[in-house]
Amino acid sequence: MLTRLSSATKEVLIGDGGPTVLIGERINPTGKKKLAAALLAGEMDIVRREAIAQVEAGADVLDVNVGVAGLDQVQALPVALKTVMDVVDVPISIDSNNPEALDAALKLYKGKPLINSITGEEKVMASLLPLVKEYGTAFIALTMDDDGIPTDVDRRVAIAHKLVNRAVQMGIPQEDVVVDCLVMTVATDHVAGATTQEAIRRVREELGQNITAGVSNVSFGLPDREIINSVFLALLIGAGVNCPIVDVAKVRPLVLAADLLLGRDEYSARYVKAFRERQKALEAQAAQAAQAT
Amino acid sequence: MLTRLSSATKEVLIGDGGPTVLIGERINPTGKKKLAAALLAGEMDIVRREAIAQVEAGADVLDVNVGVAGLDQVQALPVALKTVMDVVDVPISIDSNNPEALDAALKLYKGKPLINSITGEEKVMASLLPLVKEYGTAFIALTMDDDGIPTDVDRRVAIAHKLVNRAVQMGIPQEDVVVDCLVMTVATDHVAGATTQEAIRRVREELGQNITAGVSNVSFGLPDREIINSVFLALLIGAGVNCPIVDVAKVRPLVLAADLLLGRDEYSARYVKAFRERQKALEAQAAQAAQAT
Repeated sequence: MLTRLSSATKEVLIGDGGPTVLIGERINPTGKKKLAAALLAGEMDIVRREAIAQVEAGADVLDVNVGVAGLDQVQALPVALKTVMDVVDVPISIDSNNPEALDAALKLYKGKPLINSITGEEKVMASLLPLVKEYGTAFIALTMDDDGIPTDVDRRVAIAHKLVNRAVQMGIPQEDVVVDCLVMTVATDHVAGATTQEAIRRVREELGQNITAGVSNVSFGLPDREIINSVFLALLIGAGVNCPIVDVAKVRPLVLAADLLLGRDEYSARYVKAFRERQKALEAQAAQAAQAT
Repeated sequence: MLTRLSSATKEVLIGDGGPTVLIGERINPTGKKKLAAALLAGEMDIVRREAIAQVEAGADVLDVNVGVAGLDQVQALPVALKTVMDVVDVPISIDSNNPEALDAALKLYKGKPLINSITGEEKVMASLLPLVKEYGTAFIALTMDDDGIPTDVDRRVAIAHKLVNRAVQMGIPQEDVVVDCLVMTVATDHVAGATTQEAIRRVREELGQNITAGVSNVSFGLPDREIINSVFLALLIGAGVNCPIVDVAKVRPLVLAADLLLGRDEYSARYVKAFRERQKALEAQAAQAAQAT
């Protein structure tokens, strides 16, 4: 199953054994005070800088989220979106559940974006799926519904089925539903990681959907989170995640290694190319540092 | 399926959702000149030191290999084995395919060891399986046979079936067969990593055996091997490996994270305990360094 996203000039394909697609997570004010303040002030410098930096680091898609308390998303989301579209050419994951803000953003978006995200809650589906249909976008289906986030695999998989069925009934192509099986912390529920992996495997098997995931929630409340997050990302890719939402600069070497180890990198070409680029960047840094002293 | 190994005083259980069992790989002269020279000279200091260090680092089982060109294994293997048994109390993986050396080693071993390894080659099965039966050991079944190492999943799985069937026919309990699906480098065959993972999944599904693996071959000939090996170990554990042969000090944090993320660590107890121990060790080092200056 192949999910196609696009910008005005660039197409990104997710799935069918292709390489893992990296969705850059950093244009999101959650936990980022400077970005939140800038967005409130209507300043787009950080957004612009993050967009460029993430694409340089290898992001295939950028997530854009302007969710700050007190900010009018209907006004701010299109501005942020346009800022990003002006400086990079990758497709965008428009990260909002505000129908008016999404509508305003979709009006100016050029290409086929991803909407992040739509839950299985009746009201949410009713207000957002028509936008997916109208603008011909893809969307991320979150496996939670009016009863919250299920702790068990069966119910998460059932919600994925429900969202896919509802979309297809409305005439949205099945491949435009990218599923997120949700990641909860293992600190309070020691099978949380296993539950997510099992749900992913089942959704891949039963529906064939492409799968996204955020990773870092899993280690909330635990020490040495970096290693937990890295190992979890590897496990999730092994289980079937093929377009994670990540800090691209941090995880790209790991993801390229995973693609290599899953048979998605003929002649190790992408892995070796990225290694050489990292080497060159390090050498350039060292040369600069030497000059500076 | 539970595989029980033991020393004179300690039992180790592999499988049934229990934590990953770490088999320490460092008592093996392949590529280690100092250890090779020491073994040739009959000196056991390095063996002793490595045994203690690996168990301190968290090894559950130690692999003991004395394969050096020109060394009489029949004499050397029992000596090395006794050396290890004298200083640590973990079960041992006796790493040899020399029947006389194994027989001499098994005569003095106290407990139930693992024999590493027995291939599907007719001559090898005929000479080594009787030792497994006679001494009641477990063994590692290597998925290669008289035609070499198959490049395809089906034939590797078929060899695993053959070795399990042959063992069971001889009265060896099925759970005493630990399967190694073999790891080849992705540099020359870009699906090599995927092949191993798929073979592991199939052996787990069709036979239920516990699974071991060495990891580092996969990155042979490639740059930045460390990250490839780490990601591969995570992927292999996700696929079903539950007693890898590893450099324990290097990989234990990763493996504890994997266990945590696969639901095998209630209350994150093992992960947090190991983290605290690492912190204490680092603090002790820092204190020593401060005193030294």
